[in-house]
Amino acid sequence: MKVDLNCDMGESFGLYQMGNDEEMIKYISSANIACGYHAGDPHVMHKTVQMAKEYDVAIGAHPGFPDSIGFGRRYMSCTPNEIRDYIMYQVGALREFATYYHMELRHCKPHGALYMMAMDDEKLARAILEALGRVSNRMIVFALQNSAMEEVGRQMGIPIAKEVYADREHTKTGSIVLTRTGPTIENYEMMAARVVRMVKEGIVVTPYGEEASVHAETVCIHGDTPGAPILIKHIYEALRATGITVAPIQAS
Amino acid sequence: MKVDLNCDMGESFGLYQMGNDEEMIKYISSANIACGYHAGDPHVMHKTVQMAKEYDVAIGAHPGFPDSIGFGRRYMSCTPNEIRDYIMYQVGALREFATYYHMELRHCKPHGALYMMAMDDEKLARAILEALGRVSNRMIVFALQNSAMEEVGRQMGIPIAKEVYADREHTKTGSIVLTRTGPTIENYEMMAARVVRMVKEGIVVTPYGEEASVHAETVCIHGDTPGAPILIKHIYEALRATGITVAPIQAS
Amino acid sequence: MKVDLNCDMGESFGLYQMGNDEEMIKYISSANIACGYHAGDPHVMHKTVQMAKEYDVAIGAHPGFPDSIGFGRRYMSCTPNEIRDYIMYQVGALREFATYYHMELRHCKPHGALYMMAMDDEKLARAILEALGRVSNRMIVFALQNSAMEEVGRQMGIPIAKEVYADREHTKTGSIVLTRTGPTIENYEMMAARVVRMVKEGIVVTPYGEEASVHAETVCIHGDTPGAPILIKHIYEALRATGITVAPIQAS
Amino acid sequence: MKVDLNCDMGESFGLYQMGNDEEMIKYISSANIACGYHAGDPHVMHKTVQMAKEYDVAIGAHPGFPDSIGFGRRYMSCTPNEIRDYIMYQVGALREFATYYHMELRHCKPHGALYMMAMDDEKLARAILEALGRVSNRMIVFALQNSAMEEVGRQMGIPIAKEVYADREHTKTGSIVLTRTGPTIENYEMMAARVVRMVKEGIVVTPYGEEASVHAETVCIHGDTPGAPILIKHIYEALRATGITVAPIQAS
Repeated sequence: MKVDLNCDMGESFGLYQMGNDEEMIKYISSANIACGYHAGDPHVMHKTVQMAKEYDVAIGAHPGFPDSIGFGRRYMSCTPNEIRDYIMYQVGALREFATYYHMELRHCKPHGALYMMAMDDEKLARAILEALGRVSNRMIVFALQNSAMEEVGRQMGIPIAKEVYADREHTKTGSIVLTRTGPTIENYEMMAARVVRMVKEGIVVTPYGEEASVHAETVCIHGDTPGAPILIKHIYEALRATGITVAPIQAS
Repeated sequence: MKVDLNCDMGESFGLYQMGNDEEMIKYISSANIACGYHAGDPHVMHKTVQMAKEYDVAIGAHPGFPDSIGFGRRYMSCTPNEIRDYIMYQVGALREFATYYHMELRHCKPHGALYMMAMDDEKLARAILEALGRVSNRMIVFALQNSAMEEVGRQMGIPIAKEVYADREHTKTGSIVLTRTGPTIENYEMMAARVVRMVKEGIVVTPYGEEASVHAETVCIHGDTPGAPILIKHIYEALRATGITVAPIQAS
Repeated sequence: MKVDLNCDMGESFGLYQMGNDEEMIKYISSANIACGYHAGDPHVMHKTVQMAKEYDVAIGAHPGFPDSIGFGRRYMSCTPNEIRDYIMYQVGALREFATYYHMELRHCKPHGALYMMAMDDEKLARAILEALGRVSNRMIVFALQNSAMEEVGRQMGIPIAKEVYADREHTKTGSIVLTRTGPTIENYEMMAARVVRMVKEGIVVTPYGEEASVHAETVCIHGDTPGAPILIKHIYEALRATGITVAPIQAS
Repeated sequence: MKVDLNCDMGESFGLYQMGNDEEMIKYISSANIACGYHAGDPHVMHKTVQMAKEYDVAIGAHPGFPDSIGFGRRYMSCTPNEIRDYIMYQVGALREFATYYHMELRHCKPHGALYMMAMDDEKLARAILEALGRVSNRMIVFALQNSAMEEVGRQMGIPIAKEVYADREHTKTGSIVLTRTGPTIENYEMMAARVVRMVKEGIVVTPYGEEASVHAETVCIHGDTPGAPILIKHIYEALRATGITVAPIQAS
């Protein structure tokens, strides 16, 4: 049994530092690398790809809205074609650094408001997937289960990895609740146990105490969550103690 | 006998129009496509690549400084590594659109102040060429003859195409004079004859009336030069009337 | 009887040209000057203020979303406080150029998606008006009649000028229809007659043929509307022929 | 006897944190507030002005080049008029927040590469001072002694405050050495004693052991210098122990 652990990385910008990339990379199997729109810059991207190479971590693109002031967390009423082109631009930029280090871009995970929009809007999901799939039929897209993205990906034969969150609550349908509630992030043991249960049993308890069914192919931990480097270590060790291997997704 | 005709394209941005791409593309063999830093945006890049595909014109990257207000014409004291990463970012972004249309990025020509810096600064030229060459050993770099870029490219075994300008004056060494003098741009016949002579005889007359030796593998015409669509037509027809084929450079 | 004619100006950016400012300024009484976010840059702002000074045209700020690729026409889910600060930033930047030329910023008209949001959202309208009113109690805000902005302005005692559009259709409530229908823009006589009727009789015919009551204190003509310089001339002359003076709004 | 202590503030951007504004503000008398070009954003500017109001600290503009990736530390070959307009834009934007809080912009200190250029280039200094002085004849400009800025300001009758640096070395002419040498920054006592001597005796020892004559009207401490909050406290207390009052510059 195995699962992928992913984390958003390369979100520093110029002199500005963000996250704990050097710590997080020790335990994750997939790095979602920001591409210079909502966060990151070419130099940060270069160094982040290089670091992933050193740690033998799979890399993917983490494109966002062109909104650095808002860190890509604000919805923008762009058309599907505009967003498709923003994603192609950012994915391509990152792919160049990957190629330079003889690495492959394994996955793509849109960021912030763009992620949430792509999960909800079928036309947008289709525009994104058509572009990503045409450039590489091995590119895996991370998506919430029961989302428009998952459904359209299945229809189009694009590899989708169903994603759950270590540091967010889930709804009954497996979607995420943006405001944090439930087990506090400081309670690392409980958080790790919750991840293990999602992976092993396919079950998560919602903030309302109900059991929801989830399919955890990849688990996200945010690098700017307080205590993230400790949390990821707990999760990694709890998974291994249960006999679950942490490894990147493979496009079948 | 053959020569390449190149033009900067895709320099529109959002609602802002620049150049006469639809006219210029009919006569050129290579399009230098702006990559969203000094000009262009993802949507413009997409449409420009698509248009080049339709007209069967070879495409290359035209990266510039991150200075949209100044259109990349102002020097910025960036380090060679910073510039290398800016170029990789922009080239990669464009390459994604090329791949989407099953096209190859055939060449790279830095823009504006970045072009002039790369012609002069050996360390910078080396940083750029090392990155471009490692990602693709078939990428041709456009350079002035006798420039640092040409020299370093030769040393490193990177394909270089020596470039002359249809709408700029040249110095005795084959470099260009940024302020326009000499034959006025409206005199299309003379301008075209000058290009033919550069290509056929390898000679251009400097603003001081001296003959200079040039090696014209690719000829640049700027799309925002007044009368550019008429000038390019004259050049194209004058070349053909002399038996010179207009065709993209081939990496040997 | 008098009315204000306003036009968006200073929307050029770097080397990119937009609109017909030199033509439009001859006939308008108020220039809405872009402030560097969705359009314009400091140099364009400087020149536009200087030109308004020469033509004795009143000036106001035309702030937009930080979205130059989308020209400020895309909605962004910013908070009222974020938008208030974006507006203060842009208004202040323009006010500096006004002060330099011993001019006053007479009005403020948000641009594009920001305008439409501010007309609809009471909290946003309040945040904007509180900031503008605290800095200058003489600043006039342009708003659609029956909008949240008009209502909140009335409550707060901030001067509001009710705006109609020469080159857009109106609804029964005096709001505008974003897609153009009805009298084609080329029919300058009819367009001008419609403006005169809005100003003189307070009536406009909707695309559905109904008469709607409007209060036209200021009339907008977009500089990038095809034929705008001819249209504005027709409107200006039709107003004068009817004995209506074209003059800036005065804060009472 | 008195002296001004100044610190660059408001350099955070969106979610990115920079500096220790909450600590530094307790001891300084003048805050140089970034204006959204090289650092800062409208929301950060608003909060920084509000904080300065609470602590009764004088505020000034800290404009920089439009280069957020490079934090304004890279030279850009802009014309004096372009730079003048960039400075007017940024100063005006900040002035709006100051006016909102019934505060005055007391000073202006260009940032990074722009500061160094303005100290060296007489034409540039003149363009900047003409614009600042025309908008407010009470605006004080911070400058190195013996700089072009100081000289031109004296000629034009613009108030100039001569600046020294607590965390940089000085040359024999009172200019600064960009690379740090000499007393380590961790030796807070020595650093504070050096500042006291500059203020009281007008003497600083260069890295070559020579005594140089300085006129310290305002002393800069950078908020991102390691240990800055401790250093500023030491300096503040050493100055007071010597009977020197820390207070903003007054335009005479």
